[in-house]
Amino acid sequence: MKLMEELKFNEQGLIPVIIANVEDGRPLTLCFMNREALAKTIETGKVHVFRRSKGRLMMKGEVSGHIQEVRGLFPDCENRSLMITVKQHVAGCHAGYMSCYYRQYDGDSDDYLIVEEQVFDPKTVY
Amino acid sequence: MKLMEELKFNEQGLIPVIIANVEDGRPLTLCFMNREALAKTIETGKVHVFRRSKGRLMMKGEVSGHIQEVRGLFPDCENRSLMITVKQHVAGCHAGYMSCYYRQYDGDSDDYLIVEEQVFDPKTVY
Repeated sequence: MKLMEELKFNEQGLIPVIIANVEDGRPLTLCFMNREALAKTIETGKVHVFRRSKGRLMMKGEVSGHIQEVRGLFPDCENRSLMITVKQHVAGCHAGYMSCYYRQYDGDSDDYLIVEEQVFDPKTVY
Repeated sequence: MKLMEELKFNEQGLIPVIIANVEDGRPLTLCFMNREALAKTIETGKVHVFRRSKGRLMMKGEVSGHIQEVRGLFPDCENRSLMITVKQHVAGCHAGYMSCYYRQYDGDSDDYLIVEEQVFDPKTVY
């Protein structure tokens, strides 16, 4: 498979992956995949990552049910990163927001502004 | 500055940064910044990266003029990556496309489909 052959995994065997919402194209999160996680993601059509803390592959949404169904695979121009577009179930962030980038840094207050609506209450899910 | 204090740079002193188009929110590219590159990016309002091949900080667009003006800084929920929204001048990719993710992998043909219009001809710029 050309994609797997051409992607450049780093010295630790990882590649950075932007997970983007297929509905509006915006980033939901960024994760690192090893070859095994990417192969499993492509094979099953659901995003998988290698969790170092658990020592194994995990499907995103395995606990919460908030899975990410693969819609498109886009290597960057140098094959050093990948963008995967997904259909996101419920929300992408464990903090209850669609995206993990729900906070914007505000220089004036030296603090963060919440720039997304919360989709679910993490206390009821985890 | 809270943002710089809270971001978690990895063992090599780098953090992955999604550069997204402020106009439609879509990813343009992904780069790694060290603390110095991020400080310079914030100070000047223009994206800078550390180029290992050159051994120094470089402004994105320094050669081509295709600079990226910072519009927003969004740390992820765990402060392990950053999204920066930018006003992109001309195009983000050195291959002449707005985004570095202009190729989609197609499983049927085991090849890539070009999914963006080319904005400029690299031969006339570099």
